[in-house]
Amino acid sequence: MRPAGRGLFVAFEGGDGTGKTTQCRLLVDALRARGVAVVATREPGGTALGDRVRDLLLHSGIDIGPMAEALLFAAARAQHVTEVIAPALARGETVVCDRFLGSSLVYQGIGLGLGMETVRAVNELATAGVLPDVTVVLDVPVEESLRRKHADGELPDTVESRGSRFHERVREGYRGLGSQLPGRVAVLDGTGPVGEVHGRVCAIIDAALRGYGTDA
Amino acid sequence: MRPAGRGLFVAFEGGDGTGKTTQCRLLVDALRARGVAVVATREPGGTALGDRVRDLLLHSGIDIGPMAEALLFAAARAQHVTEVIAPALARGETVVCDRFLGSSLVYQGIGLGLGMETVRAVNELATAGVLPDVTVVLDVPVEESLRRKHADGELPDTVESRGSRFHERVREGYRGLGSQLPGRVAVLDGTGPVGEVHGRVCAIIDAALRGYGTDA
Repeated sequence: MRPAGRGLFVAFEGGDGTGKTTQCRLLVDALRARGVAVVATREPGGTALGDRVRDLLLHSGIDIGPMAEALLFAAARAQHVTEVIAPALARGETVVCDRFLGSSLVYQGIGLGLGMETVRAVNELATAGVLPDVTVVLDVPVEESLRRKHADGELPDTVESRGSRFHERVREGYRGLGSQLPGRVAVLDGTGPVGEVHGRVCAIIDAALRGYGTDA
Repeated sequence: MRPAGRGLFVAFEGGDGTGKTTQCRLLVDALRARGVAVVATREPGGTALGDRVRDLLLHSGIDIGPMAEALLFAAARAQHVTEVIAPALARGETVVCDRFLGSSLVYQGIGLGLGMETVRAVNELATAGVLPDVTVVLDVPVEESLRRKHADGELPDTVESRGSRFHERVREGYRGLGSQLPGRVAVLDGTGPVGEVHGRVCAIIDAALRGYGTDA
């Protein structure tokens, strides 16, 4: 249970094309329509440093090793927590973040083979204990998520172009995230109409805002 | 004692203006003149990723938090070890590196107040156990090192402009590095003529190359 007066910290997780960004936006809009103060943010990014790191990781063309990649994500996260997330939570605001620790555990820990324990150790230092109360994992079959992602002709970035075996490992990692994170982890079916998925998300977040389910 | 066939790993440490870069170059030239195969490198930098991180840390104008700074240096170090240092040592070559782990322990651990234990924990993951056999610390009074550094009118970067109390803490940190690093740590008087300091450096490195002094 989070301390009285501290805002709720919600993270969305899932592979590319699972609908995280859309569902973040819908949740933020729904909460604001109800008068809830919300900070919407994302990783990697969310700060000037995070944007620079994101660019380095996704678009520099440099062949970055697995440990360096994990440390770069962690550096961006440390800045993000200090600059954006911790102050918002302290003001009592709700934070909705598109990707957080779960993405590192899955992409670097499983996908790149560094191991979840190593990635967790790095991130314990990076986050200084500021972790989501609720992590919503959107689960979509790899074939469908890749089809969604490239339906508009967008070119794949470095991570996306790693091949479908990589993406299958990532999906399995996300489905098993419940045992790896503190707070409540809800793995939701991300297929079907956007509005239906949004309804499932709202049910989880409403329960958390009422004060239940933050210690799952 | 390093394993047979593995090259010697030498790191130079010290505050700005203590003569590290000059002494690295003189040592590299002296070793090469004797037919020793040497890889000369530096941190932050030494790889394409390291150069980008160096630029981010020193010249971006972004106000980077202490933990994010430590993680960025560690990310650059992980890439440097994997891409440059470990392969050179495995080929039996001597590696001479301008700044390494000692700089992180001192600048982030002491200078920024993160604590040496935290910085060490991050770097154990980053280096995967590839650490210097010999660390040469060049010790110069802060007033003299700052005077040297700016004698040519060079403008101070983000780290250099932190004020003389910061630089005093850094100097004390370097002087106490012997208890904080594995391998031999030699704190040398960096004042006086460049050739004399070079002579002191050569005495240390010659002993190490003969196989002594790597387990100080």
